[in-house]
Amino acid sequence: MATEGFRALDEKSLVEYIKATPSLCSKLGNQLDDLQIKEVGDGNLNFVYIVIGSAGSFVIKQQALPYIRCIGESWPMTKERAYFEAVTLKEHGRWCPDRVPEVYHFDRTMSLIAMRYLEPPHIILRKGLIAGVEYPLLAEHMSEYMSRTLFCTSLLYHSTTVHRQAVAEFCGNLELCRLTEQVVFSDPYKESQYNRWTSPYLDRDAEAVREDNALKLEVAELKSMFCERAQALIHGDLHTGSVMVTHDSTQVIDPEFAVYGPMGFDIGAFIGNLILAFFSQDGHADPVNDRKAYKQWILRMIEDTWNLFQKKFTTLWDEHKDGSGEAYLSAVYNNPELFLLAQRKYMKDLLHDSLGFGAAKMIRRIVGVAHVEDFESIHDASKRAYCERRALEFAKMLLKERRRFQTINEVVLAIQDLPS
Amino acid sequence: MATEGFRALDEKSLVEYIKATPSLCSKLGNQLDDLQIKEVGDGNLNFVYIVIGSAGSFVIKQQALPYIRCIGESWPMTKERAYFEAVTLKEHGRWCPDRVPEVYHFDRTMSLIAMRYLEPPHIILRKGLIAGVEYPLLAEHMSEYMSRTLFCTSLLYHSTTVHRQAVAEFCGNLELCRLTEQVVFSDPYKESQYNRWTSPYLDRDAEAVREDNALKLEVAELKSMFCERAQALIHGDLHTGSVMVTHDSTQVIDPEFAVYGPMGFDIGAFIGNLILAFFSQDGHADPVNDRKAYKQWILRMIEDTWNLFQKKFTTLWDEHKDGSGEAYLSAVYNNPELFLLAQRKYMKDLLHDSLGFGAAKMIRRIVGVAHVEDFESIHDASKRAYCERRALEFAKMLLKERRRFQTINEVVLAIQDLPS
Repeated sequence: MATEGFRALDEKSLVEYIKATPSLCSKLGNQLDDLQIKEVGDGNLNFVYIVIGSAGSFVIKQQALPYIRCIGESWPMTKERAYFEAVTLKEHGRWCPDRVPEVYHFDRTMSLIAMRYLEPPHIILRKGLIAGVEYPLLAEHMSEYMSRTLFCTSLLYHSTTVHRQAVAEFCGNLELCRLTEQVVFSDPYKESQYNRWTSPYLDRDAEAVREDNALKLEVAELKSMFCERAQALIHGDLHTGSVMVTHDSTQVIDPEFAVYGPMGFDIGAFIGNLILAFFSQDGHADPVNDRKAYKQWILRMIEDTWNLFQKKFTTLWDEHKDGSGEAYLSAVYNNPELFLLAQRKYMKDLLHDSLGFGAAKMIRRIVGVAHVEDFESIHDASKRAYCERRALEFAKMLLKERRRFQTINEVVLAIQDLPS
Repeated sequence: MATEGFRALDEKSLVEYIKATPSLCSKLGNQLDDLQIKEVGDGNLNFVYIVIGSAGSFVIKQQALPYIRCIGESWPMTKERAYFEAVTLKEHGRWCPDRVPEVYHFDRTMSLIAMRYLEPPHIILRKGLIAGVEYPLLAEHMSEYMSRTLFCTSLLYHSTTVHRQAVAEFCGNLELCRLTEQVVFSDPYKESQYNRWTSPYLDRDAEAVREDNALKLEVAELKSMFCERAQALIHGDLHTGSVMVTHDSTQVIDPEFAVYGPMGFDIGAFIGNLILAFFSQDGHADPVNDRKAYKQWILRMIEDTWNLFQKKFTTLWDEHKDGSGEAYLSAVYNNPELFLLAQRKYMKDLLHDSLGFGAAKMIRRIVGVAHVEDFESIHDASKRAYCERRALEFAKMLLKERRRFQTINEVVLAIQDLPS
């Protein structure tokens, strides 16, 4: 916390900060007398304050600690992550303003971002999935967000000059990348003090993950791809806890893990977390609601998300094929048959990457350090272990055999065909 | 040339520069009275002066123009490439000092590098290959250079922190990367004012390259890999003109195209240029020397280079498997069977990458802007075209079918099996 000029704000000093910041005063219509301030951070990385005045509102997110609270000072983290989060919110917002909260103010010294307050009834998507709520526009919106942000920050859209400059900048977000590398691609596959699982039920399952040679070979390939391949500006943590929803709104938040990385890491994170939500449903079933219909809705969302993503992404590619993107120059990919072949190959590879990363994200949520509320909220440990084991087995198969799936429909059919 | 403080040196001002630079005076034993200075630049990118005194010598390389001479001012190039060349000479020299000339002095403002003079009988390897000279240590030395420089700048050797920082720096060498992207991966596959070939003999062959959908799909994959994948600090232009040799010395020069890129780009450049040398031999045969034995020697060099590379690279990996490299943590890849599987998979993928990039480098030397002296020195155009066509056909096959080759021996057999 020795950073020059930085001080962690509390509710009182936050008001002083707002008063001294014209852009924030202006967002509140300069009505600062009766501000309601509420701290709503999840306790992992940041303090989050909701600030509501009589004439306006916003959220203030400040990275209060140079380390992650849940793990303690042994895991140092730079406060510069606020910078990468702000830059990414702006960049992704530029390409998909309807799905990303607007940034009103960024203070690099204070590691502080002021952005749109996502008013009630916005809730974290994960909580909605646990509650069994359907969001009719979810696949439409998420496919829009992913297709636009990933396409427009890739070499399909911009020149290699722009790309290498942007890649260089985001190489600076290395500490959060290292966290991803460790918790997603390494810790679950070895003994680690941070790993945990529903014990004793899954003791043997966790051990089996650590002893699965074929699985570890595939994970190595994905880890190298994550570390080496600067395909697009990815959100970097696109699970269902990074999405806020209402019946007709979908907003993607918290891109502090952003980096130029493989597109499949984002798509896989979202789809993988939907699959986790699917497998958790049996633990939330009760006599009133057996969740069977809801499980089918989740599967439909998985299928629709990928299929709509594919459609929107290739449509963007069609629209911009004569633009400044340099991966497929129009003078080279100049006949419709070849162009279509190129798109099909690209999308098939991207599906396989997405399934691989999605499976890796599922595994780490069951036997790694950070679990998901979908399962954690199942209080009966044996029931929770049953749900987690089914998810884990499916994820292991998916990671190892991802290349045999030609469409997302085949993946959904594989889930439906599982014995219960 | 408006860069502050920069001035292009001629022989006279070079002497003044040396006199004003203590490290250079010292290299000459402070004997500056009878300096012999010779300009030996190849006219493409740089001025190169050999400076020989009575008590010492060195080479001065200065990037004299902010654009490439052969193409003219329409193709602007930053002088900063001297910086990346100097950094790479030092970094590669750190890992493989016996195969990289020592840097004595670097002046960033002047875009000037002073380095070891590779005294006679050092000649450019390509010229030796055209003359039909065997270099008994060539495969041993080149495999040593490639294995050490590529391994030690990859995630097999260093942490992701070190890696991302180095990747960020080399993103700055984007103008030379763009040149590679254009001349290797784009121009040969479209109409371009820069393309040329042995006309009219190869008119139809050049057109066939531009109309080969399967080839263009594969080239797209390689281009994306080159632009996106930061696997190791590659030389970036490792053809047989970037290597100086004697009977027992091998020195790699001119890494101004260096970037963090796919390892296969370097390995492929070297092997692809050896294959070009092979196919050019029929054009150099005469009644005294039919070059048959020499062709077999080249094939042996191709085979030995890869096989020795593979051996040295995996030996380095064995030695450093408990080190700071983060791609394959020893706690995860902790049993001998798994470790061996991981190495085999890595090397098989690397062979396929190398064959792909090698083939692309061959194609561009026959139908792209910059040709090789191996063919250019065959004065009979119809004989030259015959040699080039055989090389081109082999390269097209290799690029499209590279994944069916499990060993380099299979590649050599495929060359030997070609009808003459």
